[in-house]
Amino acid sequence: MQIQIDQARLIDELQTLATITSVEPSPEGTAVTRIVFTPDDLRARTWLKSLAQQEGFTLREDAAGNTFIRWQGSDPSLSAVATGSHTDAVPHAGMYDGTVGVLGGLEALRALKQSGYTPRRSIELVMLTSEEPTRFGIGCIGSRLMAGVLDPARADRLRDLTHANDDEASTLAAIRTAAGFTGPLESVKLPPNHFHAWVELHIEQGPLLEREHIPIGIVTHIAAPASYRFTITGLGGHAGALLMPDRKDALCAAAELILSVERHALATRAIDTVATIGTCDVHPGAVNSVPSRVALALDIRDTDPARRESVMQAIRADIADIARRRNITIDEQFINADAPAVSSPHIVQTLEAICTAEDIPYKTMVSRAYHDSSFIAAIAPIAMIFIPCRNGVSHRPDEYAAPEDIARGTRLLALALAKLTSE
Amino acid sequence: MQIQIDQARLIDELQTLATITSVEPSPEGTAVTRIVFTPDDLRARTWLKSLAQQEGFTLREDAAGNTFIRWQGSDPSLSAVATGSHTDAVPHAGMYDGTVGVLGGLEALRALKQSGYTPRRSIELVMLTSEEPTRFGIGCIGSRLMAGVLDPARADRLRDLTHANDDEASTLAAIRTAAGFTGPLESVKLPPNHFHAWVELHIEQGPLLEREHIPIGIVTHIAAPASYRFTITGLGGHAGALLMPDRKDALCAAAELILSVERHALATRAIDTVATIGTCDVHPGAVNSVPSRVALALDIRDTDPARRESVMQAIRADIADIARRRNITIDEQFINADAPAVSSPHIVQTLEAICTAEDIPYKTMVSRAYHDSSFIAAIAPIAMIFIPCRNGVSHRPDEYAAPEDIARGTRLLALALAKLTSE
Repeated sequence: MQIQIDQARLIDELQTLATITSVEPSPEGTAVTRIVFTPDDLRARTWLKSLAQQEGFTLREDAAGNTFIRWQGSDPSLSAVATGSHTDAVPHAGMYDGTVGVLGGLEALRALKQSGYTPRRSIELVMLTSEEPTRFGIGCIGSRLMAGVLDPARADRLRDLTHANDDEASTLAAIRTAAGFTGPLESVKLPPNHFHAWVELHIEQGPLLEREHIPIGIVTHIAAPASYRFTITGLGGHAGALLMPDRKDALCAAAELILSVERHALATRAIDTVATIGTCDVHPGAVNSVPSRVALALDIRDTDPARRESVMQAIRADIADIARRRNITIDEQFINADAPAVSSPHIVQTLEAICTAEDIPYKTMVSRAYHDSSFIAAIAPIAMIFIPCRNGVSHRPDEYAAPEDIARGTRLLALALAKLTSE
Repeated sequence: MQIQIDQARLIDELQTLATITSVEPSPEGTAVTRIVFTPDDLRARTWLKSLAQQEGFTLREDAAGNTFIRWQGSDPSLSAVATGSHTDAVPHAGMYDGTVGVLGGLEALRALKQSGYTPRRSIELVMLTSEEPTRFGIGCIGSRLMAGVLDPARADRLRDLTHANDDEASTLAAIRTAAGFTGPLESVKLPPNHFHAWVELHIEQGPLLEREHIPIGIVTHIAAPASYRFTITGLGGHAGALLMPDRKDALCAAAELILSVERHALATRAIDTVATIGTCDVHPGAVNSVPSRVALALDIRDTDPARRESVMQAIRADIADIARRRNITIDEQFINADAPAVSSPHIVQTLEAICTAEDIPYKTMVSRAYHDSSFIAAIAPIAMIFIPCRNGVSHRPDEYAAPEDIARGTRLLALALAKLTSE
């Protein structure tokens, strides 16, 4: 089969998608901010759907806004082979995270069509809602609902963290409805083995492929992330008048906790342990007020859930010490923890066989970032294709993947879809 | 002279003023947020002016919004004796900081009038604009302009930190004009010795009077505050994918700096050294993004400017070490530093003599918080009267001063105004 990826068109479309953002270009590169269900997200969806419709593919949207672009196979009674990713982006992000899997997926379908190939199983390209946790505090909302691992009623009650209010208008239920995605979230769930296979193309978001000069990573495991929120409550007061020995400064306690998290994540000496305090909200937050309350968000991940828990235990021991020593309260709130996902050996072998036949160097690897594929694993055998990204950088304006790497990953995806759809 | 302070009315008016706020009552007490030139600030001004007008006092407002309530004396050619304070409040503040000096000042004037006293020198009650730095980053904007220690053009260019934007609408010039305070800020400046004397009544905002069971503090010196902004620039990235050893986490560096400030402020072992990091802004500020940039605001004060500078030098040495060790950039931006103010020995002696005659226990003390009086010192001999506040707490909803302490301070103020106006 002659598969021809139109590299120029694909890069051009990635660049166009990067312009659909609420942030102006920054000196660090093209800064993209595309929060789920904002006007920017909705504009991006509209444009992507128009590209799919130009190819004659059919469209379905579910109540969560997950969008299914379908190329009907010659035997529609068979379960479909699917690919997909997300197009939402954290604040001041880059232009490749998620988008390479969506536009690369579309290009794979177009290249197969162009080659004259007729799939036996249908092929679906899925654009998933809110992979990023920015707006509602947990990620992969669309794929979690598809997998049935997020309670629909709980999902509808999630609150908009970017415009924190206690009113009804700031719930996911109200926001998805206003965006045009109505109906019960219960209807989003799909049965086990809904798809015959699922393959997601994604930038590595890590430095390993680039360091080892390997153009393709085949993901065998996806690490297990967990998130927590810590609320530190001390005593505020006037910055000029509250004596140093009398202080219970919540931000100083938070600083010790931030350094504890870093120290214990480094202490495992395992490359797969990562822990991050990504937000630090200070109350009352005035230059001349001693901080009385600080909230920190912790994201901690590991390929080994037991090691992740042992890091948490070490952090908790420090928290107890900080709280006692400073006579301050530190509350831990568990937000979320997911199980690691394992790729289908059959799909991994299929990808390996194609790489070998096509003379593409590859390595099998784990993903330390989590992805929608982690949850799709509940309704389909899965695997992921990684391509290198410069310096391992992601979630930053200078995130970058080379055009030839994107095209190579897209070509591998197309060949894999062709193979899997003929099974 | 029979001076009768109407304690019930004064407390009632303080409670009414506390309801003019943008924040609902909180479980910690009456939370007051009254940022300068917001609708809440303007409503408070309107109400206070109506109280003054009911007494037949005249009003003048300058281009900065400083409001002068005047009781004309029998010899208007003499320079006036003045008192005053501020009614703006930091976010989630209490109800006594500043307001006791304004409503206590009004009550002092009313009590003198009630007693049948006719002042020879006029008496002015001044409500000063933006003592708190919340909105524009520097405090005492009104009194600084009166004293000529803030350049009017620079003041007009100050930007609204609560709604940070680069547009013209967010300058002090635009915001004061929209609030109805027009004309050149140059006109706000007053000449040296504009007032014959200035006495400000204020809660201590510290624990000393309460601890020593002394109802009155007579302030002889006001400490010298300084403020700085630190910008810490590291490298951001995806919280799942950026390996721990490869990180340049700006928030971890900020945590070290926060603890350095605390350590060096404690290390002087001087009760008069205080240093506070009151804000911590994290970029991009997402749970799954490694912080790439953090901004911290430092407020550092001392009665001894040389000791304050030596603490800064120790902090700077740590900053150089943190930046080198973490391969991160830390920029220091100097915002402001003021000289300490010294009270007029004559006014201090006048207050001491009244306390002795009236059998009121008192102590002379320094103010570690800064006040408008620090700047009024350029245009008048000054002193301050402190009253105790519970646990030394200020800038918090549970800030509290006892009604009898407020009334006692107000009575002392009235007697001092009577004495000074007859000179």
